[in-house]
Amino acid sequence: MVLHNKYFKPSHKTGVMKCLLLICDGMADRPVKTLRGRTPLEAADTRNLDLLAKSGILGIVDTIAPGIRPGSDTAHLAILGYDPVVSYTGRGPFEAAGVGLDVTAGEIAFRCNFATVDENGLVVDRRAGRISEGTQELAEAVNGIKIPGAHFRFRASTGHRGALVMSGKGLSHNISESDPHEEGVKPHVVEPLDGSEEARRTADMLNRFILGCGKVLAGHPVNVRRIQEGLRLANTLLLRGVGVAPSLAPFSEKYGFRAGCIATVALVRGVGRFCGLEVIGADAEMSIPGLVSMAIDATSKYDFVLLNIKAADDASHDGDAEKKTAVIEEIDRALAGLLDFTVENYLAILSDHTTSISRRDHTGDPVPILIAGPEVRTDDTAVFSERAAAKGGLGRIRGQDIMNILVDLMNRSEKFGA
Amino acid sequence: MVLHNKYFKPSHKTGVMKCLLLICDGMADRPVKTLRGRTPLEAADTRNLDLLAKSGILGIVDTIAPGIRPGSDTAHLAILGYDPVVSYTGRGPFEAAGVGLDVTAGEIAFRCNFATVDENGLVVDRRAGRISEGTQELAEAVNGIKIPGAHFRFRASTGHRGALVMSGKGLSHNISESDPHEEGVKPHVVEPLDGSEEARRTADMLNRFILGCGKVLAGHPVNVRRIQEGLRLANTLLLRGVGVAPSLAPFSEKYGFRAGCIATVALVRGVGRFCGLEVIGADAEMSIPGLVSMAIDATSKYDFVLLNIKAADDASHDGDAEKKTAVIEEIDRALAGLLDFTVENYLAILSDHTTSISRRDHTGDPVPILIAGPEVRTDDTAVFSERAAAKGGLGRIRGQDIMNILVDLMNRSEKFGA
Repeated sequence: MVLHNKYFKPSHKTGVMKCLLLICDGMADRPVKTLRGRTPLEAADTRNLDLLAKSGILGIVDTIAPGIRPGSDTAHLAILGYDPVVSYTGRGPFEAAGVGLDVTAGEIAFRCNFATVDENGLVVDRRAGRISEGTQELAEAVNGIKIPGAHFRFRASTGHRGALVMSGKGLSHNISESDPHEEGVKPHVVEPLDGSEEARRTADMLNRFILGCGKVLAGHPVNVRRIQEGLRLANTLLLRGVGVAPSLAPFSEKYGFRAGCIATVALVRGVGRFCGLEVIGADAEMSIPGLVSMAIDATSKYDFVLLNIKAADDASHDGDAEKKTAVIEEIDRALAGLLDFTVENYLAILSDHTTSISRRDHTGDPVPILIAGPEVRTDDTAVFSERAAAKGGLGRIRGQDIMNILVDLMNRSEKFGA
Repeated sequence: MVLHNKYFKPSHKTGVMKCLLLICDGMADRPVKTLRGRTPLEAADTRNLDLLAKSGILGIVDTIAPGIRPGSDTAHLAILGYDPVVSYTGRGPFEAAGVGLDVTAGEIAFRCNFATVDENGLVVDRRAGRISEGTQELAEAVNGIKIPGAHFRFRASTGHRGALVMSGKGLSHNISESDPHEEGVKPHVVEPLDGSEEARRTADMLNRFILGCGKVLAGHPVNVRRIQEGLRLANTLLLRGVGVAPSLAPFSEKYGFRAGCIATVALVRGVGRFCGLEVIGADAEMSIPGLVSMAIDATSKYDFVLLNIKAADDASHDGDAEKKTAVIEEIDRALAGLLDFTVENYLAILSDHTTSISRRDHTGDPVPILIAGPEVRTDDTAVFSERAAAKGGLGRIRGQDIMNILVDLMNRSEKFGA
């Protein structure tokens, strides 16, 4: 199904006004005890964010819905204007798109690990000794596997990771996954999760594909070499994150402009690519100032640029409040040039979700948002923080509202009605 | 249909953090002239609520939707996370559950009155002389009535009141009710409200059941005694509040924890019981401090406890602003111990709906909510009132958001996405 904006058809007018959407992954937090009840965003010296807050309008966003803990994938889908409740069944399709596979609606996709099983079939290493070389050759062998009724495309990404796309007629994503998520046990047999013929057939073909992987990987020259080098074999694939690829209206059709996506994380790149944003190369080692510069530069080519900065989320998952505060200050310093940008263009800054230092994971708390640009109705806020934003002029909105608000501020929205 | 949370499957992890949800029935109000334009909540001395407001986060809630006047039943359903638009067709099923009948999905249920009809079939007393004795014996006689194609279970509750559950194949709740809501007229014949065979059959069986009630009640020893004592006969049942019992996902499955419900009102107990909360005995005569103590004690056994305090609603229906103010002060005094509770647990306080002193009935105005606990993002509010809450950090939320927010604060929510 194609998910168009339900209120209007987009225009394809071109204009000079640009929009930069900065998603500071996991930047929002709850009050942290070691920060004397402040959040890292409150504790950090964020003079540029505060200047932007003064010149802009703030609010809080439930990227999915109040109290719902978003993943980065579902949150980015919502922020880009797509309903994740309809379009999201699992991480696989977005992960696959993120590593460069073309995924079309209805295909079933997975995240995969190269893993090591012993002679008894038990998983001894879920990451195949963190294999880093030879995975392209192994991928070629995997791509040679033929299973009647389905076609499989596999791509290796970084380290032991990869993604698998399965296409064919009458497939179902309502199946279990093979990754047991622990070692010392056998990989799970893929099982249908409902009584449908589609799920039964899909599970059956996947089990035969996994068997095939074992066969082509066992004696593969890469593994022969690994034996000689005393390394763990990459002799099976573990599948997880199953999902069916949704049919999404391309971003350019939905909003009428050309958009680019900069992200160091494959999953976010995958969401962007899946929604029709052009992925702009950003390697995982790029600095925060480098990413911000790249994004500003990209606005000369694109009408709309999404930049995801991952670092604050990583610090949160580590439970490191000091590091998170420092990362936020680093982001803030990189934004010094953006006040000028907002004289003639729009800038929106938000988290995709709260990542709590104490929980070391995403939480369902709303996130602060800041919109600055030539015609926003500024409010009294002078600080960019979770609590300050709750008093902002935007009130409490949803992730799926954001693109409509930005497109409208850019004077590129269509009228619904007469 | 089973209404699961659409975003995630719940976890069944157990934790030590507890949550107490205090619903002060009808406590919210509009500005009252005799209180010099203040609401009773604003006029009352609420020092404990204000302390909790200072230490917590406030907001306003549309329990159903903005401007929609909730019943206590629909409001409690929504607050517990169930969509009343889908699950609510009438009060009957919840009233029946509240008086202890086991009601299953698809059954048709009613509130009933024992009433007096004269020899011409006219209702002379809708409450059978406010009968208080012998209703159990009368109920036994009613339960002996056999109507082919349906099974009836009746239970007498307090005074002239009772509840009736009808089960069978192909029933419809789209029928009229027999209670004429006035005296001096005949009870209404139950009519189908659509052209369906189900509605026609259901109405027909109900009319035969009501006829049967007349027969078994007329000469019943209890009524023979009442004639001797000069009391009005309980010689018919009047049916109202028809509804079909919905299929609701049990609270424990939906949120992954064990929950208790304390309420002096059968309807609220019924909603709780229907949603899978364990009803904790609370007799109608219990004092407000007694109820609060009982609720705090119950958190040692349950992860989640709902306490409904009815008194402010009663005062509102009486149009008594002074009494309502006094009741609110009495509730406030009973909450003195709760600030300690919120050091390690969560407490949420709200009204299920506004009950207006001037209208003497529920209104659709939003209600204030307060959430206090270890990790809430506190705001600047220092008073618990309708107007102060509108400036709080929660903004304006819906009834159905509340459980998701609380479960997430308790770190027991599942992630939607990756």
